[in-house]
Amino acid sequence: MRPSKRVPDQLRTVKIERNVSNHAEGSCMISFGNTRVLCTASVETNLPPWRRGQGVGWVTAEYGMLPRSTGQRMRREATAGKQSGRTQEIQRLIGRSLRAVVDMQALGENQITVDCDVIEADGGTRTAAITGAFIAMSDAVAWMKEREIVGDNVIRDHLAAVSCGVYQGTPVLDLDYDEDSSAETDANFVMTGAGKFVEIQGTAEEEPFSADELQSLIGLAQKGISELVEMQKRVLNGETI
Amino acid sequence: MRPSKRVPDQLRTVKIERNVSNHAEGSCMISFGNTRVLCTASVETNLPPWRRGQGVGWVTAEYGMLPRSTGQRMRREATAGKQSGRTQEIQRLIGRSLRAVVDMQALGENQITVDCDVIEADGGTRTAAITGAFIAMSDAVAWMKEREIVGDNVIRDHLAAVSCGVYQGTPVLDLDYDEDSSAETDANFVMTGAGKFVEIQGTAEEEPFSADELQSLIGLAQKGISELVEMQKRVLNGETI
Amino acid sequence: MRPSKRVPDQLRTVKIERNVSNHAEGSCMISFGNTRVLCTASVETNLPPWRRGQGVGWVTAEYGMLPRSTGQRMRREATAGKQSGRTQEIQRLIGRSLRAVVDMQALGENQITVDCDVIEADGGTRTAAITGAFIAMSDAVAWMKEREIVGDNVIRDHLAAVSCGVYQGTPVLDLDYDEDSSAETDANFVMTGAGKFVEIQGTAEEEPFSADELQSLIGLAQKGISELVEMQKRVLNGETI
Amino acid sequence: MRPSKRVPDQLRTVKIERNVSNHAEGSCMISFGNTRVLCTASVETNLPPWRRGQGVGWVTAEYGMLPRSTGQRMRREATAGKQSGRTQEIQRLIGRSLRAVVDMQALGENQITVDCDVIEADGGTRTAAITGAFIAMSDAVAWMKEREIVGDNVIRDHLAAVSCGVYQGTPVLDLDYDEDSSAETDANFVMTGAGKFVEIQGTAEEEPFSADELQSLIGLAQKGISELVEMQKRVLNGETI
Amino acid sequence: MRPSKRVPDQLRTVKIERNVSNHAEGSCMISFGNTRVLCTASVETNLPPWRRGQGVGWVTAEYGMLPRSTGQRMRREATAGKQSGRTQEIQRLIGRSLRAVVDMQALGENQITVDCDVIEADGGTRTAAITGAFIAMSDAVAWMKEREIVGDNVIRDHLAAVSCGVYQGTPVLDLDYDEDSSAETDANFVMTGAGKFVEIQGTAEEEPFSADELQSLIGLAQKGISELVEMQKRVLNGETI
Amino acid sequence: MRPSKRVPDQLRTVKIERNVSNHAEGSCMISFGNTRVLCTASVETNLPPWRRGQGVGWVTAEYGMLPRSTGQRMRREATAGKQSGRTQEIQRLIGRSLRAVVDMQALGENQITVDCDVIEADGGTRTAAITGAFIAMSDAVAWMKEREIVGDNVIRDHLAAVSCGVYQGTPVLDLDYDEDSSAETDANFVMTGAGKFVEIQGTAEEEPFSADELQSLIGLAQKGISELVEMQKRVLNGETI
Repeated sequence: MRPSKRVPDQLRTVKIERNVSNHAEGSCMISFGNTRVLCTASVETNLPPWRRGQGVGWVTAEYGMLPRSTGQRMRREATAGKQSGRTQEIQRLIGRSLRAVVDMQALGENQITVDCDVIEADGGTRTAAITGAFIAMSDAVAWMKEREIVGDNVIRDHLAAVSCGVYQGTPVLDLDYDEDSSAETDANFVMTGAGKFVEIQGTAEEEPFSADELQSLIGLAQKGISELVEMQKRVLNGETI
Repeated sequence: MRPSKRVPDQLRTVKIERNVSNHAEGSCMISFGNTRVLCTASVETNLPPWRRGQGVGWVTAEYGMLPRSTGQRMRREATAGKQSGRTQEIQRLIGRSLRAVVDMQALGENQITVDCDVIEADGGTRTAAITGAFIAMSDAVAWMKEREIVGDNVIRDHLAAVSCGVYQGTPVLDLDYDEDSSAETDANFVMTGAGKFVEIQGTAEEEPFSADELQSLIGLAQKGISELVEMQKRVLNGETI
Repeated sequence: MRPSKRVPDQLRTVKIERNVSNHAEGSCMISFGNTRVLCTASVETNLPPWRRGQGVGWVTAEYGMLPRSTGQRMRREATAGKQSGRTQEIQRLIGRSLRAVVDMQALGENQITVDCDVIEADGGTRTAAITGAFIAMSDAVAWMKEREIVGDNVIRDHLAAVSCGVYQGTPVLDLDYDEDSSAETDANFVMTGAGKFVEIQGTAEEEPFSADELQSLIGLAQKGISELVEMQKRVLNGETI
Repeated sequence: MRPSKRVPDQLRTVKIERNVSNHAEGSCMISFGNTRVLCTASVETNLPPWRRGQGVGWVTAEYGMLPRSTGQRMRREATAGKQSGRTQEIQRLIGRSLRAVVDMQALGENQITVDCDVIEADGGTRTAAITGAFIAMSDAVAWMKEREIVGDNVIRDHLAAVSCGVYQGTPVLDLDYDEDSSAETDANFVMTGAGKFVEIQGTAEEEPFSADELQSLIGLAQKGISELVEMQKRVLNGETI
Repeated sequence: MRPSKRVPDQLRTVKIERNVSNHAEGSCMISFGNTRVLCTASVETNLPPWRRGQGVGWVTAEYGMLPRSTGQRMRREATAGKQSGRTQEIQRLIGRSLRAVVDMQALGENQITVDCDVIEADGGTRTAAITGAFIAMSDAVAWMKEREIVGDNVIRDHLAAVSCGVYQGTPVLDLDYDEDSSAETDANFVMTGAGKFVEIQGTAEEEPFSADELQSLIGLAQKGISELVEMQKRVLNGETI
Repeated sequence: MRPSKRVPDQLRTVKIERNVSNHAEGSCMISFGNTRVLCTASVETNLPPWRRGQGVGWVTAEYGMLPRSTGQRMRREATAGKQSGRTQEIQRLIGRSLRAVVDMQALGENQITVDCDVIEADGGTRTAAITGAFIAMSDAVAWMKEREIVGDNVIRDHLAAVSCGVYQGTPVLDLDYDEDSSAETDANFVMTGAGKFVEIQGTAEEEPFSADELQSLIGLAQKGISELVEMQKRVLNGETI
């Protein structure tokens, strides 16, 4: 029995509220259960130096957690003077994932920076961040298209992410904090709307996992992500979820 | 005429939503017009080393702006590797102000850390932060009292803050970004419920101000802060504003 | 009774020695009692990038304390790897204050950097620094004028600063360290020769101050600064004080 | 055709030389083709503070590249003042992987730190590092056992790692730099001697990969790692490879 | 002909003013011509952790240059966020040199930190700093002796330093900035009152120097340092030089 | 008797293996006994900004120690976030020394960066590094000459370095770690093939040394360096040593 009473292949309640920022070109607040992440996409014309003059664009991401997004207050990274290894790993993952579904030629010499700031954390912040970042980026691209900065085909496919893990011997979908902190295995999957894989990160600090368990996790991720992509489509269509 | 059509001594619409965090012992989202600041108060038993073993507590604050809380995306301070001088100045101000209304003996050997994170900025973020931080701290103290960690008299008075400035020759209350960025003078006042001054910071980068203008700003601040304290009382009384 | 036997509205003995540096374009050693600050003004043609090409100049300041300027040796900031929040706050204050009396058009595309280094500290280092920085800057502007780099009207007015505070219930002028460390309220005022206000910073960490006390502090500051400006005039006139 | 003429499921020539350091308790130089990594394991009794007094040990790793281990000289991280995100990601991966095969109770309150320094890089530095780090750690544990610091069962299984990728449409094993820099997909697998998974990291910055491709990569990794484990056994048995 | 008209083996005018700080336990302002260095010695009971509990003391030094001690304003190291390699080299040299004439047993578990801050630089700042630091340290030890913290034999010998160099083919003593910046060779010598060597640092960035030239520099240093030690003795005897 | 049984003026066994890097334009592994340093020379066309456009080149060096090159594991400087004062001192010394034998006009607007990474440390790492860096630099210059980037006369003379010290009262050549850690005096000499001095650094933290001892050290250094230069010539001639 999962602490949340969910069945093994059940996502938490997902909510996505678009246009939550007055300033950002695209934005949303996404919730996976009690995990809430604010995603804002900023359109900039100032590419990084090594990317300039090639007729192509760039997409990057930054990630942060508010100090009291967690049960115990965390030290503010700006005070500590650097981002932790974990933060850097996550923001590199978000950026790479988003780039996998963007046509950089079609984007032109523009940069989109997506900031994912965790307002409240209850497990799965990176997967919620990726799923929400896609919405914010999509709205930023729509903003560019309205202004005829780009054409039609910038975004090539949907992108969503979910975690899976082996919890008390059972493979389960979308771990919350209670599950995550005691799971034997924790895996994060990023996939496209077409069901292709963009990133797989499976980790077994406690107990190595078998090839069979790996197959179960892959199956759960495929199911969960297809549901998330479905929700993204409804939200971008103007529905409220 | 002010860009917002307000009369000179008129505050922006103020909203305070309490208990917006599942984790923090006290929290609120405060809005001064379009400026929105999330304030969370964390109760910790781990005093800074220089404060230990004296039977007294400590209150401190940290301040941050989300990168896209502003019209142009700002660099994330955690990425830059340090807090700007402005950030440090503001968080020192918030901490000092809160300490002025706390009885450190009554607080005992506990620390309250208030994080003020600007979700959206439209001028007056530090004054909104102080006004909201007082609510978050009050709720954290109430949380401690419920658990009999502290007694009755920890908080000695209300605390609120507002900015004033000389805009196109006229002293006005509670500057928004449009006013602030072109004001000749910008002053921030922090006052108690009893109408005493905790902090005054008046700055004239453009044009020095006269003794008469200073008196006008003081008068505006007294009016604005008494209204803010009134709202704080209603909110802490359970009303929705 | 003040520890120094001064009457409430009495400044400490002020000394200003000009041209103490062989290298700097303007310099002075200023003393407020035992507080001694070396101020050197450097003329540079290299404006900060965001200020270039606009036909205007820039004035900035840096502040430091020698490690043994204080009763207990302080950690050297260069060793610590960063300037403290207090240092940054003070140097931002000095820079803003100086800019308030400089005509940036008249200065042309030149930068003046004033370094204020505290040789010995006994309270009021920032106000001594501002008062001395004005002299060093004036001499640097005179140096530029001699070389026909600028014309006549670069400096628009005098600038001086003083602290006031409530010490044992009495508002007093120009606090020394003994007073400062036990004052209920500490306020710093920066004013022009014409008696206008450039900066007011009043802080009550211990006990909030009343509107009446604020008025007393303002009055003391006006008196003290007019005396300091008078001394500046004599010193710039070639007198020894 | 692979640039190196290897068939798709063929490892590069692997060499492991043990005891290359006079100081370290365990060490080896491992080569995967032209990639060479020096792995040294240091036994320390000084656990990190959060790990103390629990009767268990800790294993951690650090990773670095010599500035000219690459075709173009890279900036030295000690000069840059920080480790890159990539470096931190890799050293966290190595540490997590090693911990998955160590019985922390059996290790007792000791720490093993494995340094993996890349002498020459030609793709696959992190997988060579993990495979070599296991040897260095094993020798350090043997050193401890000889001195009766630990007993028999500290290391629970073998551990090795390999990369796979989709190169010009074909899944291939153990990518060298030429392949890696143009592969559509790059995946790193860490597995135990028993064929269980410790880490999977698959990334598709260029082109998302299908479920079928994922299965091929898993199969290649299983084959490659079982060969690497076989070599580890021979080397630890005293054979030269 | 030297730019300063001095003969080859002639020191610049040396001045040493003792007790220039109200706070420091020992202090002096030392001038070698236009080079002026403020040396303050602080007595602390807080030894570095690795030095504690051994019944011995420690002497250390820190060095800094005020930003406008030089012809062109230098960047403040506290702003840059670190001490330059040159600064660290010099302060390590000063500390090592001072330790060579202190009996650490006799000093007991006390630390003396000597700060050498260059007020004005005209070549030879490190040698002036060492020569002055010895005076400040001596006065701090005398301060300790008066208070019976230490006994008689803490300082074992005098210590002074001077630079020599080959300027336009001629070995000369005590280089000023004009000579130093165009000398083929620059050497710094630190010696004791008994004429023994504590440090020799000879550098030929431009043109390697011969064994004969080295012998000449050694001879000049011996002469110059014996004169400096003579002056130190007079100054510590209460004379004014 | 020296711990290594060497006679006082005897070098340790020296080995120099050239071309140990596939990537670097010049490289060698040099051993002075158990001290081993990997030296790689990188040819770059990107001069530091202050050196550009003058028709001359630049040579610089960086130095590092692998964490377990020493008996006790040292903290990795990249993790610590900065290079130690010792590291900076050494790499500045290596760079200065190399520059003393290079004709910067003949080098043209090219930079050579020599990285000296200590694989194993047993005393004398800086002198081994300089002696090996000269070989790596020579091979890099030969590489440039083959490609007609430079002409014949870039390197003006040989360059080698050795340490000497007073060990148990006797001046000895080329100290190993056992001697170095208990020597009264430690001196490093850098000399050219023609027997001229480039750098002398003599330090007596324990006991000042006499003029006679200094002469002995100079004599030992002259002998040792002439032997090292002889070996360099044989190695560059293609012999194996």
